[in-house]
Amino acid sequence: MTTRPFNFSAGPAVLPEEVLAQAAAEMLDWQGSGMSVMEMSHRGKEFISIARRAEADLRDILAIPANYKVLFMQGGAIAENAILPLNLSRGGRADYVVTGSWSLKSQKEARKYCDVSVVATNEGDGHTTVPSPSTWALSNQAAYVHVCSNETINGVEMHELPDLKALGSNAPLVIDCSSHIASRPIDWSRVGVAYGGAQKNIGPAGLTLVIIREDLLGHALPVTPTAFDYKVVADNDSMYNTPPTYAMYVAGLVFQWIQRQREGELSGLAAIEARNVAKARLLYECFDTSGFYATKVVPEARSRMNVPFFLPSDSLNDAFLAGAKERGLLQLKGHKSVGGMRASIYNAMPLAGVQALVDYLNDFARRHG
Amino acid sequence: MTTRPFNFSAGPAVLPEEVLAQAAAEMLDWQGSGMSVMEMSHRGKEFISIARRAEADLRDILAIPANYKVLFMQGGAIAENAILPLNLSRGGRADYVVTGSWSLKSQKEARKYCDVSVVATNEGDGHTTVPSPSTWALSNQAAYVHVCSNETINGVEMHELPDLKALGSNAPLVIDCSSHIASRPIDWSRVGVAYGGAQKNIGPAGLTLVIIREDLLGHALPVTPTAFDYKVVADNDSMYNTPPTYAMYVAGLVFQWIQRQREGELSGLAAIEARNVAKARLLYECFDTSGFYATKVVPEARSRMNVPFFLPSDSLNDAFLAGAKERGLLQLKGHKSVGGMRASIYNAMPLAGVQALVDYLNDFARRHG
Repeated sequence: MTTRPFNFSAGPAVLPEEVLAQAAAEMLDWQGSGMSVMEMSHRGKEFISIARRAEADLRDILAIPANYKVLFMQGGAIAENAILPLNLSRGGRADYVVTGSWSLKSQKEARKYCDVSVVATNEGDGHTTVPSPSTWALSNQAAYVHVCSNETINGVEMHELPDLKALGSNAPLVIDCSSHIASRPIDWSRVGVAYGGAQKNIGPAGLTLVIIREDLLGHALPVTPTAFDYKVVADNDSMYNTPPTYAMYVAGLVFQWIQRQREGELSGLAAIEARNVAKARLLYECFDTSGFYATKVVPEARSRMNVPFFLPSDSLNDAFLAGAKERGLLQLKGHKSVGGMRASIYNAMPLAGVQALVDYLNDFARRHG
Repeated sequence: MTTRPFNFSAGPAVLPEEVLAQAAAEMLDWQGSGMSVMEMSHRGKEFISIARRAEADLRDILAIPANYKVLFMQGGAIAENAILPLNLSRGGRADYVVTGSWSLKSQKEARKYCDVSVVATNEGDGHTTVPSPSTWALSNQAAYVHVCSNETINGVEMHELPDLKALGSNAPLVIDCSSHIASRPIDWSRVGVAYGGAQKNIGPAGLTLVIIREDLLGHALPVTPTAFDYKVVADNDSMYNTPPTYAMYVAGLVFQWIQRQREGELSGLAAIEARNVAKARLLYECFDTSGFYATKVVPEARSRMNVPFFLPSDSLNDAFLAGAKERGLLQLKGHKSVGGMRASIYNAMPLAGVQALVDYLNDFARRHG
């Protein structure tokens, strides 16, 4: 069990080894059913029980209020960039906060369906901050306000969601939380819709989670494909079209794994969050004290999940990556738009993995500093 | 290996046991990479090699011409009901042939995006025939002609695709082949677009295949979500958004399994087709000679994949299903809109499974006839 390398991919990304082992063990026969989960009718009692438990466990982990629907969809956050305004904009105005590559892409796609106001942007500082909500130029009549609460590429995280009501807006807040969902609690009193692709903290690529307050259902534009009409999906328990059943099953195993986690007195998501805080602290501290590595995101906006960093010279990058691979530290190359390196340290990355990375970082700095 | 029950689900459906065994064996470590396929970046060399091989093998199996693109998408055939007219209709007219529940649903959704002509329908005979192409009232200026070449619910299959040119239409033929793709060859000289959900003959739910002639790319309506614009998907090798990587991997294993099949002198898809012909003959012959069971589809339109059948009285249905389950014959209940029973006998259903069903059918008829 300890010989697996540590995988720092930004997504699809590391999954808990226990989850993979259980999926492998159940592959040919799920719990005496004689079927693989892949082979089950989505309308049969076996799969319905898997889907219901996955939803119940997610609701438990994230404390999702009863007046929010959980939708299991397809297409990832990039498809949601269109599906969201199709469902929520009513062809009017929507406010977007730009904090990095993903929110930039979201607001661009939304322009196909509604008037978009970019009410704040950190483009001026190279996507390394979160603009203070008090500076956001919110519209009077926005159908919603969209933020990306963790920018996977830039490594910028909102550690507190804005209280739109306090800022004078009645619009629902929409968060693209793809790359930090289930890494920390969500304050639902501030959120109308949370969505995300599964392939970072939840499970296999091809599953999209949409968690939506019920009063926001039922306003899709006429051109919305029926399969992507949130109300239709909600009314059919995510089975209007055949859902990505195996991905839902693996996500369910991940939810059970989250519930089993313990960290001192803490359990479940609280244990996960404490571990994520400790992992991020260990890694950033290494960078801050090294005198060798650089990070660009301001400390208060640093992501706990995605950590871009830079060597003193790009000429060292290949040697760094080769040495990392030799030590079983995989997929550390940075996104092409940012350059340098990136360590994604999602829920399933153990502290031991971050420690192994830090040991290598220190060693590499000693040898090349 | 022989103790697994036989699973007659209409989809998600039975997969080859060898494929499931390989997926289980590779779950924690794909070919020495130290990663599960679920954990791989879709842009890493490992997954790229999986995706390229899957496409190459599918091209080999189906003899897909070089001027057709293979797209790995999400949302299933139900999402394609919208995505197709968004990409192909140019807001003009499209011709639809109705042969059952799925094509009925397709033409209804298309009306959101274009003018739809139902150029032929078998509604009058309860979806039990394929209207002769010579009777289709094709439009002069249709952007495309859509058929469902195998109706999963009604059990109606087109055993020959129409030659639209010979019928005086210059429109490309679009086939929804979800439930018989890779069960027989496709005559590409007659087809512009073939699409289908993977969860019948190909792999896990959540993957959609679209095979499209290149000249049909690039005509998407402005409201098309970018993630579902065929040209964008094609230009980005199906990686504009994160594709359903694990489902693609399993599909790839299924393609390799098809290539390995032998039946006498035949190999690959030809072997698969010969076996499918034999399986369907065995099953229909049982019904035709039983004097007990009834089928409704006319012989020339009978599906090789999905076989609805009826007991003399619905009061026997529960006893039939219970007895079947005891013998390890699973998921035989018919679709609610058709009633009765349905045996789906996809590629991965061995002849032994159909023989076991026939033995049970004969036994049940003897005891209740």
